[in-house]
Amino acid sequence: MKRKGGTRKSAVVLLSGGVDSTTLLYYIRKRLNVVNIYALSFLYGQKHFRELTMAEWQAKAVHVAEHQVIDISFFGSLLEGASALTDRSIPVPDLGKLNAEQKRQPPTYVPNRNMVFLSLAAAYAEARGVRDIFYGAQAQDEYGYWDCTVDFVRKINDVLRLNRRGAVRVHAPFAGMSKAYVVRMGTRLGVDYAHTWSCYRGGRIPCGRCPSCMERKKAFKNWKEIRK
Amino acid sequence: MKRKGGTRKSAVVLLSGGVDSTTLLYYIRKRLNVVNIYALSFLYGQKHFRELTMAEWQAKAVHVAEHQVIDISFFGSLLEGASALTDRSIPVPDLGKLNAEQKRQPPTYVPNRNMVFLSLAAAYAEARGVRDIFYGAQAQDEYGYWDCTVDFVRKINDVLRLNRRGAVRVHAPFAGMSKAYVVRMGTRLGVDYAHTWSCYRGGRIPCGRCPSCMERKKAFKNWKEIRK
Repeated sequence: MKRKGGTRKSAVVLLSGGVDSTTLLYYIRKRLNVVNIYALSFLYGQKHFRELTMAEWQAKAVHVAEHQVIDISFFGSLLEGASALTDRSIPVPDLGKLNAEQKRQPPTYVPNRNMVFLSLAAAYAEARGVRDIFYGAQAQDEYGYWDCTVDFVRKINDVLRLNRRGAVRVHAPFAGMSKAYVVRMGTRLGVDYAHTWSCYRGGRIPCGRCPSCMERKKAFKNWKEIRK
Repeated sequence: MKRKGGTRKSAVVLLSGGVDSTTLLYYIRKRLNVVNIYALSFLYGQKHFRELTMAEWQAKAVHVAEHQVIDISFFGSLLEGASALTDRSIPVPDLGKLNAEQKRQPPTYVPNRNMVFLSLAAAYAEARGVRDIFYGAQAQDEYGYWDCTVDFVRKINDVLRLNRRGAVRVHAPFAGMSKAYVVRMGTRLGVDYAHTWSCYRGGRIPCGRCPSCMERKKAFKNWKEIRK
């Protein structure tokens, strides 16, 4: 299933419709030459569910074998009061207004969301006989999200390795990269970033001030300098 | 939150409505004296959804603080063709008809189900400020389910320990016990097993021949001998 420098026949990819996971989608299609892509997206009660329209557009653009958009809206209710991304009574803060404690674990953190996503992805992959899952965690996310780190991915794989039918494996190829670097790669791979969504606030147009908008802006401003 | 030999104020418990998780519910209420119990059950596309009625009955019987029955029926569809517990076209086999390979990983195995359940339980616990999750995995389950082993629980905790807000911890106190031993304990704790459900086939009355019925029968036959 996995061949060094060669092709993987099939892979599952977590596709949010944001910059990182969309670039990842193109990366596994065009760089890794994966033939059958199974894309998985989640409606989990996020304010910015607008990202899912982008995920659908991008999944079609690279002709995935299957794109499942799973409705787990109950998740937002289960987490009532616990995250600014899912609770309408908790405002998404501007990046500039985060204090030190909030930078360590921002109010936009969604309790254990990524473990839930990866567990479901692993079930899906196993049922489809697919061995590889791709996950768009990237370095800058580490500022506050423990579940975007290299260590997190490693420990998840330690769980999955116990499976007696053979392990499904999670890959996070962007985990060591800056977002600017991801954008540089995506631009080269022909990603149309107009069809991606980052803004946490989820209004009709991006707010330009939330942590996700700010990171996006910075990455698009900086990627050309990396190329030099 | 956790005190040796003392009381835990709050705990989340995965409650299927079967023998093990129901005993666990009584165990944490009566033996560990947990005050606020948050019970979590899943409608995941299982044929034996009848177990959930039992879960509701038992949750009321011990006066839990909250019982969430989460509908993730999509899970069964996502796993199409992969498990005899969720796919109507795959029959649940009699225990006596399992071959050696099937005993290692029975057709009643549901891909990665328990990791999905524990991930959701950890999210729920974190959102409620609860530190402890109780999971009714027990030794006999190990014959074919990698995700009921002590090692599995340990590796799940290795993931959760990375959480910067403080780790939620999974406890599986029955992992080293036989089902007969669990029944002996439950009987002493006053569990009404008439309101538990085991049969995988999920008909109006238990089939008496599926692996789950057979294990249940054996446990109820043997527990008195342990006492001697």
